[in-house]
Parts: sequence; C-alpha cells; structure tokens
Amino acid sequence: MSKYSFKYDFSEGCHPRILEALTRSNSEQQGGYGTDEYSRQAKELLRAKMNRPNADIYFVSGGTQANLIVISAILHTFEAVVSAKTGHIQQHEAGAIEATGHRIETIEKADGKLTTADIQPVLDRYFPPHTIKPKMVYLTHSTELGTIYTKSELQAIWELCQKNDLYLYIDGARIGAALCAENSDLSLEDLAAMCDVFYIGGTKNGALLGEAIVINNEKLKVGFESNIKQRGGLLAKGRLLGIQFLELFRDDLFFELARHANRMAQKIRIALKAHNILLISESPTNQLFAAMPNPLIEKLSEKYDFYTFYKYDAERSVVRLVTSWTTEEAVVEQFIEDLTKMIS
Amino acid sequence: MSKYSFKYDFSEGCHPRILEALTRSNSEQQGGYGTDEYSRQAKELLRAKMNRPNADIYFVSGGTQANLIVISAILHTFEAVVSAKTGHIQQHEAGAIEATGHRIETIEKADGKLTTADIQPVLDRYFPPHTIKPKMVYLTHSTELGTIYTKSELQAIWELCQKNDLYLYIDGARIGAALCAENSDLSLEDLAAMCDVFYIGGTKNGALLGEAIVINNEKLKVGFESNIKQRGGLLAKGRLLGIQFLELFRDDLFFELARHANRMAQKIRIALKAHNILLISESPTNQLFAAMPNPLIEKLSEKYDFYTFYKYDAERSVVRLVTSWTTEEAVVEQFIEDLTKMIS
Amino acid sequence: MSKYSFKYDFSEGCHPRILEALTRSNSEQQGGYGTDEYSRQAKELLRAKMNRPNADIYFVSGGTQANLIVISAILHTFEAVVSAKTGHIQQHEAGAIEATGHRIETIEKADGKLTTADIQPVLDRYFPPHTIKPKMVYLTHSTELGTIYTKSELQAIWELCQKNDLYLYIDGARIGAALCAENSDLSLEDLAAMCDVFYIGGTKNGALLGEAIVINNEKLKVGFESNIKQRGGLLAKGRLLGIQFLELFRDDLFFELARHANRMAQKIRIALKAHNILLISESPTNQLFAAMPNPLIEKLSEKYDFYTFYKYDAERSVVRLVTSWTTEEAVVEQFIEDLTKMIS
Amino acid sequence: MSKYSFKYDFSEGCHPRILEALTRSNSEQQGGYGTDEYSRQAKELLRAKMNRPNADIYFVSGGTQANLIVISAILHTFEAVVSAKTGHIQQHEAGAIEATGHRIETIEKADGKLTTADIQPVLDRYFPPHTIKPKMVYLTHSTELGTIYTKSELQAIWELCQKNDLYLYIDGARIGAALCAENSDLSLEDLAAMCDVFYIGGTKNGALLGEAIVINNEKLKVGFESNIKQRGGLLAKGRLLGIQFLELFRDDLFFELARHANRMAQKIRIALKAHNILLISESPTNQLFAAMPNPLIEKLSEKYDFYTFYKYDAERSVVRLVTSWTTEEAVVEQFIEDLTKMIS
Repeated sequence: MSKYSFKYDFSEGCHPRILEALTRSNSEQQGGYGTDEYSRQAKELLRAKMNRPNADIYFVSGGTQANLIVISAILHTFEAVVSAKTGHIQQHEAGAIEATGHRIETIEKADGKLTTADIQPVLDRYFPPHTIKPKMVYLTHSTELGTIYTKSELQAIWELCQKNDLYLYIDGARIGAALCAENSDLSLEDLAAMCDVFYIGGTKNGALLGEAIVINNEKLKVGFESNIKQRGGLLAKGRLLGIQFLELFRDDLFFELARHANRMAQKIRIALKAHNILLISESPTNQLFAAMPNPLIEKLSEKYDFYTFYKYDAERSVVRLVTSWTTEEAVVEQFIEDLTKMIS
Repeated sequence: MSKYSFKYDFSEGCHPRILEALTRSNSEQQGGYGTDEYSRQAKELLRAKMNRPNADIYFVSGGTQANLIVISAILHTFEAVVSAKTGHIQQHEAGAIEATGHRIETIEKADGKLTTADIQPVLDRYFPPHTIKPKMVYLTHSTELGTIYTKSELQAIWELCQKNDLYLYIDGARIGAALCAENSDLSLEDLAAMCDVFYIGGTKNGALLGEAIVINNEKLKVGFESNIKQRGGLLAKGRLLGIQFLELFRDDLFFELARHANRMAQKIRIALKAHNILLISESPTNQLFAAMPNPLIEKLSEKYDFYTFYKYDAERSVVRLVTSWTTEEAVVEQFIEDLTKMIS
Repeated sequence: MSKYSFKYDFSEGCHPRILEALTRSNSEQQGGYGTDEYSRQAKELLRAKMNRPNADIYFVSGGTQANLIVISAILHTFEAVVSAKTGHIQQHEAGAIEATGHRIETIEKADGKLTTADIQPVLDRYFPPHTIKPKMVYLTHSTELGTIYTKSELQAIWELCQKNDLYLYIDGARIGAALCAENSDLSLEDLAAMCDVFYIGGTKNGALLGEAIVINNEKLKVGFESNIKQRGGLLAKGRLLGIQFLELFRDDLFFELARHANRMAQKIRIALKAHNILLISESPTNQLFAAMPNPLIEKLSEKYDFYTFYKYDAERSVVRLVTSWTTEEAVVEQFIEDLTKMIS
Repeated sequence: MSKYSFKYDFSEGCHPRILEALTRSNSEQQGGYGTDEYSRQAKELLRAKMNRPNADIYFVSGGTQANLIVISAILHTFEAVVSAKTGHIQQHEAGAIEATGHRIETIEKADGKLTTADIQPVLDRYFPPHTIKPKMVYLTHSTELGTIYTKSELQAIWELCQKNDLYLYIDGARIGAALCAENSDLSLEDLAAMCDVFYIGGTKNGALLGEAIVINNEKLKVGFESNIKQRGGLLAKGRLLGIQFLELFRDDLFFELARHANRMAQKIRIALKAHNILLISESPTNQLFAAMPNPLIEKLSEKYDFYTFYKYDAERSVVRLVTSWTTEEAVVEQFIEDLTKMIS
C-alpha cells in the first residue's frame, strides 16, 4: 500500500499507549465476559467523566453490533426506529436492524441531521394497526456527512422524544470528532444527559476496536447484557475493551486524538474552499465530502487513497476524505500542495 | 484476584508473539473490513495448512458470533439444527440461534458426543409441514465435556449428512485441544475435509480474540460476508484478527499452545484418578469435569477459582477445571499437592 | 373418503347455526379489520360470560397463529417460554415460535401436564447472561394427550408465575373439551382469572375457523393489535370471526358441542379399557391415545381413518382417536362393535 | 351503519354462491390442512385456467399473510425486496416484512408503478458487504393507486429480473380488478407466465377470505408449505379456502365480479371528471383517489363512508372511493346525483 490513505479513520492500528497497557497487563488473570478489573475501572471512570453515576455501561466490539444490540433490545416487535436516510443503520449496515425484525423509517436530509420538524410528521402518520409505530429516534453525532448537532438542537429533539414517549439513541461512532469540533457547544456530559442511550466510539478514534454503550433509561437496563450475549457481542476477554477505554479516558487522550483528526481535516477543508471546490456538507469534523472534477479525482488517486461515492454532475463526483488521530500533518501539507499543483 | 484461576482458558491476555506482531505493524496503513494484507496472508496460510485451496475463510470475534452467523446464513427459515443437549449453542449462548429464527433439536448425550444412531431418529421424526426440518448437524470438537471425536466417528457422521442432504458444521472453539489430544487420530486436514463449514477457535487458545470460519460448501459461500456484516461481526480493523491467526499458524505455535494446555490438564486428571475422584467424562483435553466431595470443593475454593456447575449427589458437586496455553506447570503441581493434602 | 375419520376434530364444516348466521348477515355492510358490530358484540358477550369486564379480546384464524402472536408480543428478545415437551408449540408448529426469535424450554412429561415442581428447576438454572431467561409458562388445556388441569393445579402454577414474575399463557385450542370434561372442576371464569392471557379455540369445536385471544394483563394490551396485523393475523372481514363466536356463545352451544365430543370419546374409552387396550394417558376429553396391537390397527384402518403416531413396543403402536362436536353416536357404536369383533 | 360505505371492497360478506357451496359440503368429512378434495380440485382448475400445469398453489387467509410468507420463504437473511414506496408491504402491513428480517428498498412513484428505470439504480447501488442485496421485485397489480401494468411493462420488468437474477413477485390482492380493467392487455395466463410467484386475491373480490399463492419457480417450491405452517397460515379446515376458489373459478364468476366493481368505479370516475375534480391517479380499476374540496368531503361524509387519506393543498384533501363486486348501481347513481347537487 504505497498510496497514503484518507479512506478511513481506522487504517492504522491503535494509539501506542493502548499496546503498552495491553502488554503491561497481559500475563494477569482476569475475570471473563467483562467482569475484569479493567472494565470495572473504565466504567467507573466514564460514569464520573459524564456525571452519570447510575448509567449502565457495556463495551462491545463495533458500531453495527452496538446499533443492532441497542435497537433490538429496546424496541418491541411492532415498533420502528426513525433515522435520517443517510444514517449508518440505513446506509452501511447490510440490513442489520431489519434482521432483528424492525423497520427503519427514513427521512431525506441533505446534511444528515434530523430536526423536530422532520420527526413530527412521521409521528403524525402513525395509523394503528396498519402502520408500524415510530418509537425511537436514531441520531448520529457526528453524522455521516460530518455535521454535528448543537446543544439547542439536541435539546429540542430530546424534548420532543420525552413528550411523545420516544426513545432517543445517539450513535457516537465519531462522537469524539463531534464533541471536539471547533464550533461545538455540546460536552460529553451534556450529551449524556439528553438521551436514553448512546455509545462512545473507540474504533474510529484510536482504539483497536471497541464502543462503550451508555444506558440512562432504567427500563432499558433490564436484561441488556443477555441481549449482548445473544447477539454474539460479549467478548470472552472483555479486558481487551476495558483496558482500551481506561487508557483513552484516564486523561484527556480520547479528546486530544479527536481534536487532532479534526484539525487535520479542517486544514484540508480550507484548501478545498480556497480552490473553490464544492463541499457537499459543512463539516467541522474529520470527514470532508467534496464534489471534485473527475480529472482531479483521477490525478489525486495516483498518490492518495479515498472513497469516490457517487456522480455529482456531468463533470464532478463526490469524494470523501477522512483524517484520523494519527494522520501526519506533513502528509496533509503535502496533500494540499499536490492538490494546488494539480488544479493549477 | 489473588486466587489462581482454573475457571477458563481465557483468563490471561494473549501469547506475547501476538502483542509483538501488533506492535510491529501498528503504524502501517491497511485496508479495512478484512481487506488488509495480514488477513489475506493468514487465509492463504490456513488454506495451505488444511490443504483446502478453495475454502473461503472469514475471521470473526467470538464463538457465539461465529455460530449464529454460520447457522443463520445456512438454514432456511423452516429448518433446524441438530445438537447434543450439552452443545454450546444450546447451553451457553442465551438463545442466540433462536434469535435468528431457528430451532435447535437437542439430543441427550452424557459424553457430549453425537453419533449417527442419535441423529437418524431425529430425521425419521420429520413430519412436514407440521414439524421443523432438521437440516444441519452441529458438533463441537472438543465437546463441552472435553471429549473428542475419532476419525471414524466423524467420517460416519459426515457420510450420514451427505446421504441425507444435511449440512455438517463443527464448532471448533477448542479445536486446538481436540486435535492435539494424545489419543486423537484426526488432523486439521482430516477434519477440514469432512464437513461443510467449521471454525478454528483462537480466543481459547492464545489469541486476544478471534475465530476463523472455514467454508467448504460452494452453496454456503454466496453472500456470507454480507451476513457477517449484518450480524455485527465485521471488524473495521480486521487486521487485528488477521495478524493473530498469522502469528498462531505461521509455525506450529497454535498446536504447541494446545498441547501445553492438554498436558497440564492431564497431569491434574491423573491426580484426580489417583484420589478416586469421579470424572464425569473421559476428557483427553484441557477441560476436566469432576464430581468432588463438597467439603473438598470448599477447601480448594480458598486457593483456586473454578466453576462448580451442579449438584452430583448428596455429597458431591461437579466442578470444571480448565487449563490453558499459559497455565504454569508449577501451579499445577502446587494444585495437585494441595489436593492431596486436603484429601488426606 | 369412504372411511369414517377419527383423525381430527375438524374434519367437517361448522355447526349449521354458524352458516345460517353468515347467510343472514351476508349482505350487510360492516367495518373491516374487526371493527364490525358482530365482533364487538361477541367480545362483550365473552367478557360477560368470563366475568372479565376489562379483558381485551381479539379473534384470529388459527391456533399456531394465536400462539406465535401472543408469545412474540409478550416476550423480550432474550426471553424464553417454558412448555411440556409434548406442547403444541414444540411438536406441531414447524418452529413457529423460534421463527419469531424465542426459545422453547421443554420439560419431559408423560401426561403432557406441567407442575410447579417441573417449572422451578428451569427457573433455578437461569444463569445470566449465558442462558436465556424463562419468562412465560405455556400450558395447553386440554393437553396434547387429552389430559386436563384441576383448579388447584392451575392455581399453584399461577401463584408460582406471579411470585417469579412469569407470564402464564394457556393455549385453549381444545378448551371446550377441557372445561366440559366430566371430572373438571374448572369453569371458564375460573380459568380466565388465573392467567395473563389465553385463547378459546373455535376451530376444533364447531367453528369454520377462529380463536379468541383474551388478555388480562394490562402490560400485554399495549400494541397487541399491531402485532396481530404484523404477523398477518388481522382478517379484512373480521365479521367472519365475530359472527361465529357470537353464535357459539350467545347460548350454551359452545359447551354443548364440547360435551358431545367428550361423551363420544368416553364411550370409546370404556370399550378400549374393556378390551384391555392400554391407554397412554388418562384422557377425559375428546382425544384418546391407545397402544394397540399392530394387526388390530391394520384391520381398523380398513374402515376408519386415524393417526398412528409411533411404535410403542414390538407388537403395539400408539394411535390417536379424536371425536368431535358432530361425531355421530351410531358411528361410535359401530366402531365399538367392529373393535370387539376384530379383537375376538 | 346507516351510511353507505365506499371505504373498502370487503364491507359485505361473500358472493351467495360461496355460502351455498359451504352449506352443501358442510357435513362431509374432509382431510385437514389443505388435503381436502375441494382444495385439490381448485388447484387443478387454477392450473388449467392459467396454463401452468406445474405451478404449486397454496391457499392462505389474507394478503399480509401471503406477502410475509412468500417474501420470508424466498429471501436469504441478507437480501431485500424492492417496492414502490406506495406498496402495500411498505404502507399497510405494520412492518410485517421487516418482522421476518428483511428490508424493503422503496422507490418513490406517484402512480404506484415501478419501471425498469426505477429498479436499475437500486441494483447499481449494491455495495457488498456494506449494503443489503436487492433480490426480489415486488409489484402490486392493480397498485395501491388503482393503476395497472401493461403487458409490455410487465415483460420489461420480468426480463430485467431474469437478467439480474432477481425474483419477481406480484401481489394480486386486487388482481381481478387489474385484469378486468377496460384497457388491460394482460390475461391471467400472461401474468402467470411472467413472474416467479404471485397471488390471486379472493378477499377483495367476493370471497369471505382467501388468497391463492401460485409458485412457478422450482427453487421456491421446496419447503414452502412448512413456511406457511410456521407463519401460522395453514388453516385446519383448508376446505374453507378450497371451496371458495373452486366456486369463484369454476366458471367466469371471479372475473364477472371484478368487472362489475370496475364498472361501478368508472361511472363515478366519469362524474368526478365532469365536475373537474382532480384525480390523483388514472385508475381504470375499482379504487379512485380524488383531491376534493374539504367542504364537499364534509357534505359527502354525511351520507357516505370513505377514507380521507391526507391533505392535498390548503383547500383539498385526498379521498379514496372503493367499489366492489356487490356495489349496487342504484347507489352509485344516487352518489353521483348527490355529488352533483353538493357541488352546484
């Protein structure tokens, strides 16, 4: 792989401190299935950081797994989840939610963000027993277009959910990037207080693997671990997940990594704008979506790896550029230089 | 955790060579979702070692996950899997198979092993459309009682399956221990040639996590990866699994680790027999099941950690003792010495 | 079909009064999906007869449908239903319950009846998160072996369920026969007061089709009709079901029909006993299970149609003889006469 | 119910000939679960009428049931069905398809009809293993907007399906109305030859209940009846369905009834057009969708019952008017007269 990849934020291994922690603890005997001391400590730490002393926390190995476990655990057989059409559960999970028996009610949104005005009509259309009941709102933060929710936007959705007896679930696969965006006015504590359940993504922010599901709602806590086991999500060596979250959160590492990824992307964003390349969404996070001229894409592809998603118009296609916790600034500068040369 | 644990074969981290390999490769960029170079190499290596050049191989993170993915991918909605009642899918997976829509037809077997004589009556009872169709046989090797299949036993089941158009699936969570048992006459190559699909368990033989699903049957190959994704089993950083299997199989390490675990258990087994402690099954592998007097269990529990499964009779209960790739011989000897003292 | 059939209790059409009621109402316009006047009246009538003014009642078209709708509506994904191994959901429904994602925990019972002593050990074995949670007890009344529960037996199970936070569900496919058995001390009102949900079987007691699901538990009422619709159980012309239940219950017809069926079977039972034919179960209802000599079965089969279920020993097999609301007494007498001749 | 209802085509009972046939056969003993003589004859008759001598035919009790049984029997776990967004499975079945584990990929179509140009982009977007595989096309004929497919339109879709290894399934809940529309150039025989599976709707064309699933594709035939049983669709008294289809098809009755319903609707349609009332779709069948001024809807509602579906603009809402096999011509004329008066 001689090209530098902006394809994912999980091209590399993990932050070196994680490998060190794994090595340090390797020969210790620990309880299985998440009963280990590291998982216990990591959960305590997260509860403290979020100021959610009563939250139940479970570590699982990936985002699709987290989504299907949470959604199938919460919804009754005749209930549906509401999502933007761009939502990860709709676009990138091979029908994982439907495979557990539930429909996703989708809403077209160019920026990937739901608003209360989007959700209300879905509720209004409910016509029992002929239609399925919308019972959960699914948000991603940051979204699949790199955009983020403001505190007041999230607050409004949370209030709508409470008023209408809907669950609010936030997919935080890239929650680090979202919370650390320059213009974000939401803290982890804020977000944790305004939903029934969410997850903190480790895989896309420096862990080998691992997402931390945080449950606030008492009703959702019952039997949740059985559901994890039943869906194949309970790792025998749960320490592998506990150790990583402990390492990422025992100081500010998780947020530092996310800030770095954002900073790298924003450097590229400024360059794209300077060259009048159309950005499909206004992303302050580590994913950029740009409609580039096809010949430029071809030239960039010789040196760099990235996804070209779809045709934008006759001359342009939409590419995604992703930076990560470990993207080197020098490479970003080289990319910008290359881009400038190729354009001029 | 000051007691020494014989509770699982996954109390410790992983073989040090795995951590070294992870560290060595950590900063490299690799393709996501199993498209990395390490996964590619590990698959090639396994195909060569098994002499199955056309096998499809996929790495997933745990045994329950492997089982539910394989079984749900293969069976039609109205088809069932046949298993010993002791089978892992029946006893320890929280209803994972039923959650994908399929019944497990169970057969009571004291030693955990199915025979053709057990399976035939299940086939004979099939009465469509009122009963569910048995379409797959599920074996575990080694079984949940530590026992193993001989070559001719497996051969007979494989022939029955082919004759009756049944799929044969072997759960190899402890396949290392099974293949390396002293009296085993089955090689990995033998086993791989006598089933439609099986998996090689890494988690219980030195890996941090990881099982390698091996598919022989052409019909089962279609769309299999989609099913992995749909069930939440496709790791973003698939390299984590590829690197581990590459390390375990690039020389004889996988089998060395299993042989060590078996040798440690067999030392204990000899001691138990010497003390006339009843063994519930004749296990040549790394799990022992013994009906011990309750006071002895209490005394042993002060120094050692292990599962006490159920009451055997008024005076005795059944305990499980598990050794692993990293169980220290000195500890085993101390355990035997302690046992001897406690008994006398 | 020149042989007389004792194969089912649904070989004939329906009670003539039902056809008359259908004909009488045929040209009226009525609301669809169970909103018709007849369904409304039938529900009112049933509530009054059972003295359950707050019960929710829904009509569906068959027993398997009722079972899968009730069980899937009530259980969470990680919860199981406990049943005798002879239970209809285990033996005759092609995996319908598992297809909705739930395991059936089975208990071997020669007479088809569960007791509190059978259920308790299943509860004791619950070991979360590794095993599935038993959350519902499923009884059939009468059972698949024709046996029935006494008031005190049902009371004991109901108390166990309440104490252990289990749902109690009674499959009443043959509830008429059960309640009208000579030795029954349970009334419909009694039974309706001692469970969370049950159904009254019409198909096997004179209706063309139709079962009435009765829900007591408030929690189970939420969204139940959506589940019926989702499982394909909501008939457009719900009047077809309402009219039949109204006809069967507007006087004592339902119970008269059941009493007749029982009386016909009991005549046969006395004859079988007189000839020292082994009865597999002590059935006071309309199904008899007898281990008959194979040559006798062959001879009877020339004139009569019935199920031969399985080999009992070298000389005998088990047959099922079923009588119905419309079995003619003269035919029963002829059968007994033929039997006597064939034996002597 | 003093208002005349144009709400459904299932407000009344059934065609009198059906009640006569039920009465005539009522006391006969017949085999259960669809093994009766009437079902056998009805299937033979349908095969002959369709010129599909090798088709497998099964009778079930309703449209949602037919849809969920067919789709769940055919699709693998990771496969999806493609439908117009207006499709019955998407709009009116409470998530029945998703409850069996499958996604519906929807396409927005104002007239409810899919074209090859609509389907191709869905196929092009397939990106395994991240997205779900479109594997079946679902059409309704007539559609939920009353529109119908021409022979060449269906032919084109059928060819696309065959070329792309997709199954084609036609929901014929209102197939009678579709085939008997004045401008229809498709015969039952034509349609039966251009799909893998379809069903003939009885419930909405004169039966008490009942749909006939017709399977052409050999692969789909395997185990299909088990799936019916598993989903609760196998009626004990299958004769109830066989007798009805025999009666509807032993002469031209089925088509006569449909023609009548269409003729009644078309009279209304002409009147609506004469009054310049906007028709939402060009329906030649028995359902009309009209955007009527709200005061007119209010006035009509005093005498007639019908669905008002949604707001069209500030002044108008969309109503559905449905005629049936038994709609009286005098009532239709009265309705037109009332309409004319109310408008002027």
